Amino acid sequence: MLEKTEKIIMLKDFYGPLLTVKQQEAINLYYENDWSLSEIAENMGISRQGVYDLLKRAEQALEGYEDKLGLVERFATTRQQLERVFNILTDSAAEQQYARDALLILKEIENMI
Amino acid sequence: MLEKTEKIIMLKDFYGPLLTVKQQEAINLYYENDWSLSEIAENMGISRQGVYDLLKRAEQALEGYEDKLGLVERFATTRQQLERVFNILTDSAAEQQYARDALLILKEIENMI
Repeated sequence: MLEKTEKIIMLKDFYGPLLTVKQQEAINLYYENDWSLSEIAENMGISRQGVYDLLKRAEQALEGYEDKLGLVERFATTRQQLERVFNILTDSAAEQQYARDALLILKEIENMI
Repeated sequence: MLEKTEKIIMLKDFYGPLLTVKQQEAINLYYENDWSLSEIAENMGISRQGVYDLLKRAEQALEGYEDKLGLVERFATTRQQLERVFNILTDSAAEQQYARDALLILKEIENMI
């Protein structure tokens, strides 16, 4: 997956509900379902240029939210730190019951964030 | 601290930058610095009713963001889960170096979220 696509999908996972319904739809079709601009245009009944503008405005809105709130960055850093704890605990989980207990809860946390 | 005040402060910590500058100012003075409506009115050069309306609109905006994004709830649940891991690891940290290492990183995570 391309770097920009990954980034937009992460931003959409956090801030998507703040976009308009049409913006969300365009982002989903283009970035998550890999439709072409022409396919989206036909599906939404607007011009190809209209889809392009819709996507641009949606991307700018998502990036504006991240500039202000920085929550994607915060979650990404949290995930990296959790990975480090996993590695420490996994090394000792075979012998220690409590390390296994801790790992189970950390997995729940990882699924949640 | 009153329950509503706690809630508004948590919401402001996440979504505050999406409010207008005046809304942020009113929320800070009223909820964080415990000023009265009259004191804020005098300071901001608007009526007491104006401050009241400003606060109401700011609170509604904050709650609207949480309704759509739910990030305060998500972080609160993450924190509770981290507490459970702390407790498990703290019990064994005295004897085990790796449990101490894991705890240090978990503390960093807690400070970050």
